[in-house]
Amino acid sequence: MELFALNRKRIFESELEGWAFLQGGKNSCRYDTDRDNLFRQESNFFWLTGIVEGDCDLIMDFTNKKVIVFCAKLPQAYAVWLGPIPTLKELSEKYGLDFFYQEELANFVKTNSITKFHVHTTYTKQKELEEIETDDSVLKETLNELRVIKTELELEKMREVCKIGSIGHTKVMETTKPNQFQYELQGTLLHEYYRHGSRFTSFEAIVGSGVGTSILHYFNNNLKINDGDLVLLDSGCEVDCYGSDITRTFPANGVFSQDQKMIYQIVLDMQKQCIKAMAPEKEWTEIHALSVEVCIDGLLECGLIKGKKEELIENHIAALFYPHGLGHMLGLDVHDVGGYPKGREKIKNATFQYLRANRKLKPGMILTVEPGIYFIRPLLEPAFEDPEVNKYLNVDKIKKFLDFGGIRIEDDVLVTETGYEVLTDVPKEIEDIEKLMKK
Amino acid sequence: MELFALNRKRIFESELEGWAFLQGGKNSCRYDTDRDNLFRQESNFFWLTGIVEGDCDLIMDFTNKKVIVFCAKLPQAYAVWLGPIPTLKELSEKYGLDFFYQEELANFVKTNSITKFHVHTTYTKQKELEEIETDDSVLKETLNELRVIKTELELEKMREVCKIGSIGHTKVMETTKPNQFQYELQGTLLHEYYRHGSRFTSFEAIVGSGVGTSILHYFNNNLKINDGDLVLLDSGCEVDCYGSDITRTFPANGVFSQDQKMIYQIVLDMQKQCIKAMAPEKEWTEIHALSVEVCIDGLLECGLIKGKKEELIENHIAALFYPHGLGHMLGLDVHDVGGYPKGREKIKNATFQYLRANRKLKPGMILTVEPGIYFIRPLLEPAFEDPEVNKYLNVDKIKKFLDFGGIRIEDDVLVTETGYEVLTDVPKEIEDIEKLMKK
Repeated sequence: MELFALNRKRIFESELEGWAFLQGGKNSCRYDTDRDNLFRQESNFFWLTGIVEGDCDLIMDFTNKKVIVFCAKLPQAYAVWLGPIPTLKELSEKYGLDFFYQEELANFVKTNSITKFHVHTTYTKQKELEEIETDDSVLKETLNELRVIKTELELEKMREVCKIGSIGHTKVMETTKPNQFQYELQGTLLHEYYRHGSRFTSFEAIVGSGVGTSILHYFNNNLKINDGDLVLLDSGCEVDCYGSDITRTFPANGVFSQDQKMIYQIVLDMQKQCIKAMAPEKEWTEIHALSVEVCIDGLLECGLIKGKKEELIENHIAALFYPHGLGHMLGLDVHDVGGYPKGREKIKNATFQYLRANRKLKPGMILTVEPGIYFIRPLLEPAFEDPEVNKYLNVDKIKKFLDFGGIRIEDDVLVTETGYEVLTDVPKEIEDIEKLMKK
Repeated sequence: MELFALNRKRIFESELEGWAFLQGGKNSCRYDTDRDNLFRQESNFFWLTGIVEGDCDLIMDFTNKKVIVFCAKLPQAYAVWLGPIPTLKELSEKYGLDFFYQEELANFVKTNSITKFHVHTTYTKQKELEEIETDDSVLKETLNELRVIKTELELEKMREVCKIGSIGHTKVMETTKPNQFQYELQGTLLHEYYRHGSRFTSFEAIVGSGVGTSILHYFNNNLKINDGDLVLLDSGCEVDCYGSDITRTFPANGVFSQDQKMIYQIVLDMQKQCIKAMAPEKEWTEIHALSVEVCIDGLLECGLIKGKKEELIENHIAALFYPHGLGHMLGLDVHDVGGYPKGREKIKNATFQYLRANRKLKPGMILTVEPGIYFIRPLLEPAFEDPEVNKYLNVDKIKKFLDFGGIRIEDDVLVTETGYEVLTDVPKEIEDIEKLMKK
């Protein structure tokens, strides 16, 4: 609760004035059935309050620096089904906030003569507030700019989920064998998450194998893993809504082939050099550009592409093999807020278009560093036919890699006062992976 | 696909005429983020088509006995992220149905001069169909009455999920130890579900322990399990949207105490006698009434209640300890459709108010049989004070059980031509549980 009290202190020190209204997450069921969906609080609402109950909204009073929560009134009879129903007093004590029932919202607004609310851009019209003016121009940006810098208390949470995520990934790497189904690996992963206290994933796990490792957001996870396949596991867990995000790629049979080693080593170099480059005041776009450069160097060296390095970079040749950004902000959301602050836009070319952040690094930011190299038919096959592009490609050599799949390596990295700190810890050196899998 | 073709054959043999329109499930993200929620198809839509892709709708043409599907048109560029985008032809071949893109819906309606659609009661207004009359009075009931009787092909699926569910429950029973956290058991369960190919649960698992076993829909699952606690595990898995639903209650340390044995045996008797009573043409309300009778007998015998059996039944005394129904329909939804057909209503008294079905059993129906006995403070404490009720209670004796928790035993049972078949198989005799947990 200290964590959320500090968050509130921070927003009350901002330039916002007057009142704000923020809607919490709502309980929901699967379609028209009575099958409850597992409730997960909306991230901004959670950041301000730590409240895990659904169907609450809140008002921020910037004059008195107070948050007032309006919660659902459950009939006492529900205690049989849900356990003891907390009273307003109990909720107040638990969260250190004023609690009212939802039905008192209109009256509260009237009593306090509120005429205007700051709201988030996600605000959906609410009957009780129909006559109140709403302004969604500043609250979101204010929250984003606070959330992007993690406090010490938030870092504790992030360290915890990065640790649990690392345990899960290491366990899967250790136990994977050819002929397993992809979902079996996911089962092992979830078992580790759950038994260490993480009941949510920060996103649905990607468990690719073989050529499927080149599908960036693959999550069918229903195929058999073959001997000789690469396995790409991209997943993170959540505790108290804070999430991790880790990717490892490894050979299903525990031993990298020569081709797999060659591509893996390029991606690992990309990742390690980018992590080393992280420090306060560095531009994230520059670090992404570094990953592109190392990628080009590597692909040139193994003869998959040809031409002058500068020309290759200028013509976005790396994006044929590495068609995504180096990484994104991480926190309460897996693609966390704050990647594009006011005044920063996406750079619209093939090298930068999918980069999820464009800003200077600051201590307290956490970013994923997750370069990759893939052989993706829908990207490469048109390139083979384009004379403006194929002149840079050793087409015959690349064609031999069309069933290779892809490799991505991802860690979660905190920007510190002096540089960086890697929060995740899963074997990633070739010899370390082979050693672990041999056991 | 044969399963769904047969389902369509069945609905086209119904009395429905003209055209029907049914909306499929939509892909969604967590709040305003880009974090995808795992897509699970809407049950009626799935029953008719087997389609696992989101953002589809369908038209049923009852004259020509055809189903036409309208699906989302994804840009070819998405192949990089999602893998190959299937063409309409590929979808048609996969599902054996006509496919069009959503944008062709309005034109299809016009070309076929459709003026009226049967729709499900869940239909939400759609712009393209604004001028079409909609009738939600028959489609739902027709679907429910078909879904409530499972075909042989559906039974294969149900046998599979009941088997996987049983494996999971048995594994948890075998591995539970005091001092584990409830979520650790859930992790083990999910691991078994996943590695046997079930990626969805039919509902969020209930893992109660100690006094928490008396909270009927407990799913916080975040407490430590103590030596001496009972553990109540209520969970089911899904494969191809068909789900199971199993409950077992067992001692965390592997050995039932005398009190635990006493209550457990009553619940087990309730369950076994009710299962034995299941047969075509039997009224489900009568079987529920039998469970109440066995409950009263048991509570009388162990001296927790007193008075004449008939009087106790008439005054709904069992509902103080057994405040829910005997069981519900099971299929694509965990509380499956068809429990209350046209003309049947809920019986509004304490004994029957929570019973989820009121109809004659027919071959092909699957129901859960899940009686329970609980010591629930919010029910018992007011009863202690009520002279009309406390005259039937041995209050002092019951007070000793206020921290006991509760016991529920649940299997999934198919009604057959000649009687019943239990589809789930997890140890439930006291000696079998103790033997398994000793290993």
